[in-house]
Amino acid sequence: MTAMKFKPNLERLNALPKQRGLDAVVAMSPENFAYVSGVFILTVGLIRPRQAYAIVPAEGDPTLVICSIETSLAKEEGWIEDIRTYTEFADDPIDALTDALQRKGLASGKIGIDLDYLPATSFERLQKAMPQARFVNTTDDIAKIRAIKTPQEVAFLENAAKQTHRAVLDAMMASHLGETERVMADRIANGIIGNGADGTLFLCFASGDRTPQAHGYATERVPQPGEIIRFDVGGTYGQWASDFARTYSAGSPTALQRDTYAKLRKVHAATIDMVKPGVLAEDVFFFCRDQFQKMGLKFTMPHVGHSFGVELHENPMLRPGDKTVLAEGMVINVEPAVMDEEGAMYHIEDLFVITPTGHRLLTLGLPPEELPSIGQTITY
Amino acid sequence: MTAMKFKPNLERLNALPKQRGLDAVVAMSPENFAYVSGVFILTVGLIRPRQAYAIVPAEGDPTLVICSIETSLAKEEGWIEDIRTYTEFADDPIDALTDALQRKGLASGKIGIDLDYLPATSFERLQKAMPQARFVNTTDDIAKIRAIKTPQEVAFLENAAKQTHRAVLDAMMASHLGETERVMADRIANGIIGNGADGTLFLCFASGDRTPQAHGYATERVPQPGEIIRFDVGGTYGQWASDFARTYSAGSPTALQRDTYAKLRKVHAATIDMVKPGVLAEDVFFFCRDQFQKMGLKFTMPHVGHSFGVELHENPMLRPGDKTVLAEGMVINVEPAVMDEEGAMYHIEDLFVITPTGHRLLTLGLPPEELPSIGQTITY
Repeated sequence: MTAMKFKPNLERLNALPKQRGLDAVVAMSPENFAYVSGVFILTVGLIRPRQAYAIVPAEGDPTLVICSIETSLAKEEGWIEDIRTYTEFADDPIDALTDALQRKGLASGKIGIDLDYLPATSFERLQKAMPQARFVNTTDDIAKIRAIKTPQEVAFLENAAKQTHRAVLDAMMASHLGETERVMADRIANGIIGNGADGTLFLCFASGDRTPQAHGYATERVPQPGEIIRFDVGGTYGQWASDFARTYSAGSPTALQRDTYAKLRKVHAATIDMVKPGVLAEDVFFFCRDQFQKMGLKFTMPHVGHSFGVELHENPMLRPGDKTVLAEGMVINVEPAVMDEEGAMYHIEDLFVITPTGHRLLTLGLPPEELPSIGQTITY
Repeated sequence: MTAMKFKPNLERLNALPKQRGLDAVVAMSPENFAYVSGVFILTVGLIRPRQAYAIVPAEGDPTLVICSIETSLAKEEGWIEDIRTYTEFADDPIDALTDALQRKGLASGKIGIDLDYLPATSFERLQKAMPQARFVNTTDDIAKIRAIKTPQEVAFLENAAKQTHRAVLDAMMASHLGETERVMADRIANGIIGNGADGTLFLCFASGDRTPQAHGYATERVPQPGEIIRFDVGGTYGQWASDFARTYSAGSPTALQRDTYAKLRKVHAATIDMVKPGVLAEDVFFFCRDQFQKMGLKFTMPHVGHSFGVELHENPMLRPGDKTVLAEGMVINVEPAVMDEEGAMYHIEDLFVITPTGHRLLTLGLPPEELPSIGQTITY
């Protein structure tokens, strides 16, 4: 994923400080930093004290402040040329940020920063070091810019979605009765990596009475005929990822299972078809909930989907209260789930981009209309 | 990893509130929550607004406060019986925490919480909701308890380290000239997962002039004869992980490369041998630095190793200023790296547990004394 340098939406990003009446905006949550800088520094998420900042001033050039050991990566991947570094342990990252802001003449500036991520102790240190400055929360302002994907970003996300979908299809076609959850889940993971991911982001896999677990990993359990298998998986692709869910039968599905799945599949397709520019995020939720009720399915979801990009669950969320007007260029996952009367959980998830008139699927295609079984051939 | 329920060091954990003069301690960073609760909730790290808290009071039973969809996982994996839940989006997690603390009679209590993780906006909400309470930072207090591993935790970490080492050995023996970095890295990833990991945590892989990148992913670059290949990889195993680095030659190493590697390997072994109970963390760093200088190797590392557990880089860190007295039961990675005069970077890393008299390796064994080449058989 490092072959092509990623650039964020610079027009909207550079306009942000003035729009908010700020002298600068500092992106420092793992998602906002990765998006603004174009640099995927793994340790920003994995070793959190090693903070990284991308400063976008109202006037002048942007600046990166990063740990010294990430310099060559930032030069290779990033587009921001002014790079300042700190030495881990010798310097506190907040002091390096303070120094960079002061050199930019912002000692008494009004500065936006990711207060939904910045730890309380880091914020206290920042405020003490810059007593004349004022800080406001701009986590969501950058997230809103991120919500409309650039064509380059759509291409990355489509590539990831299709590779992951292909891996899942191949893995489940190769799976058979008698294998453990683990063997099947490993087959998916190997396929995701073999098809081009840098690694796995998550791999939730459950069968039978484990299916209601939202985020359980595969175990040594052997799915039995007549049981439901469901999984929700993702690979990492530089700063992007995939997020994809499907439901299968271990074989010999019951009438209840076939019926529940077919209804869920119908609601899924109808919900996706409902999405177009101008629709409110929460109205997609209400539509999906109504469809569940019409079908006689039990509805318990707090959301039915989410925007997807450098963050797994981004805003807008398809949930009550999110009045975001959906717009062209947004990339959305719809992911309804339902529990049947016997306690098995079903879950399907597809990614699409909003077009001027509707949507375009980024996965290979919607799930089969009838509950598939492991080993069954599915083509697109 | 879910077969055996993990319990933290309850004796030290339950004693913590009184030791610090607190009415309760709230663990809520991904690491501290996972350790204290024994529940690995993937989304605590991946979907950060979905916060989870483990409340350990000075008197009475502990309480979990989690998102409702994680309830079945918490019951399956965890040891804390009192579980309170909130509904995502309908409730703010901080309000659910406040409610749980107030029900415990702690509305005007002195409460420890992970202020090195709690976002600034969450902390502000918490303080407003509980104006009579006082909050202090206990991130490091729990981290200190985590630093001494229970026998169960050592067993988990040893299993992960050995499985990952085995995957690396097999992958590099199967690799050969003409393959891309990506093909070799994918072989490692597939091996890590095939040997028992839930997924990959990270997989940094670089050859030739890319080796100085601290955290670069594999590319389509084809390593050439005479080039160095280095990688730093980790798998996920429930809430545990592996973290393992090795350096290979793509074949036909130069005299400089063989010499540099052999010296680094000697320093590595000598540094590990220096670790025993009673030694200061920073003294291991100083020893390693002295050895580099005696060998004529350029020393540029901010640390030469770190404690390892549910967090990738834990305290103690083997760095100047860390005056932690190393003790039995600590699990440590030593990971020296060096750049040769031609700009290639070498890096090796092994995990061990501190015993009453020294250490016991948790990897399969130290790296070969002579620079190995891809395709070469290495046995332990």
